[in-house]
Amino acid sequence: MAFSIPALDTLIHELTGLPGIGEKTAQRLAFFILKSGKDYSERLRMALDAVQLQVHYCPQCFAFTDQELCRICSSVDRNKTQVCVVEEASDVIRIEAAGTFKGLYHVLQGTISPLDGVAPSDLRIHELVERIHDSQLDPVNPIREVILALDADLEGDTTSLYLARLLHPKNIKLTRIAHGVPFGSDIDYIDQRTLGRAMENRVEL
Amino acid sequence: MAFSIPALDTLIHELTGLPGIGEKTAQRLAFFILKSGKDYSERLRMALDAVQLQVHYCPQCFAFTDQELCRICSSVDRNKTQVCVVEEASDVIRIEAAGTFKGLYHVLQGTISPLDGVAPSDLRIHELVERIHDSQLDPVNPIREVILALDADLEGDTTSLYLARLLHPKNIKLTRIAHGVPFGSDIDYIDQRTLGRAMENRVEL
Repeated sequence: MAFSIPALDTLIHELTGLPGIGEKTAQRLAFFILKSGKDYSERLRMALDAVQLQVHYCPQCFAFTDQELCRICSSVDRNKTQVCVVEEASDVIRIEAAGTFKGLYHVLQGTISPLDGVAPSDLRIHELVERIHDSQLDPVNPIREVILALDADLEGDTTSLYLARLLHPKNIKLTRIAHGVPFGSDIDYIDQRTLGRAMENRVEL
Repeated sequence: MAFSIPALDTLIHELTGLPGIGEKTAQRLAFFILKSGKDYSERLRMALDAVQLQVHYCPQCFAFTDQELCRICSSVDRNKTQVCVVEEASDVIRIEAAGTFKGLYHVLQGTISPLDGVAPSDLRIHELVERIHDSQLDPVNPIREVILALDADLEGDTTSLYLARLLHPKNIKLTRIAHGVPFGSDIDYIDQRTLGRAMENRVEL
């Protein structure tokens, strides 16, 4: 549905490029931006500029940072012998919010997905292997445990399996975060696969 | 949940300023923008600039336009004796998409809402009255009918009532779009108020 105002149509088109933003939402956002006037638009523009200029991948863990090395990689308080492997930089934030993990991270920037044409070489797997290899030359803080915290779906499982085979020859402990019934949920509403996994992964009390 | 990357936190903060975008969605959008790199960011920035520079309110109907007068107001094919009053510029697009109305529009840019501190003077009501007044000096195309197409909620009703009282002394036909059961819907799932209105506004077959 075109507005016959090219600038507005272009903005709506660009906004529909964002994930989860459909045509109608994009229209609503564009109208809001227009109604808010120069002020909001200018702030959004400056924020886009700043992010593009300042934020880049951490060369060690591939999360986002505006420093040379990211806040977590450069911290002296973190346990450098544990590395948690996640799919996306946003996953780091979720795990940090949980507050129980005090090691370092490694962001794969995706998962192996043949259907979407994502091969292991498209991910930061090579960098992970190299990182583990390099750390084993460090006599004080070699990586001793790699914790896989990938999504509990087909792609996550495939990637976990691939990494497990790849890292098995290395002399490190390889673990995966627990899959099971989420906190606060009613068994009645849990799907079969989750319940199946929860049963398999039961722990002794 | 802060990322400790000021540029990223600022972008997320600005994105949460958009309607319907919460903290989590803003994070997802910001990460997407970061991952898409310079190209998408630049296009979005340029689209924002263009909209701010080129698009403004039509001085007659207060919809958005990039011309002196908007496409509908300046069209020779429209019936200038009918004016449809809507809340927002986006409503014009919805009604145009329906394709049954061939008159002009008048965008109020809101509705009367004492709770939100929106008084009649904050809306384009004064401009509507003046527009009707001016048009009545035109011997060929005076405004003969004002159709109220406001939202079917409390604020919409209040505004319709206010406009009805204000425009009653003028020598024009004042109508309101029909409220009733939406097309394709199951009576079972319609709320009581809609059904009540549909019953009140029943038409003879």
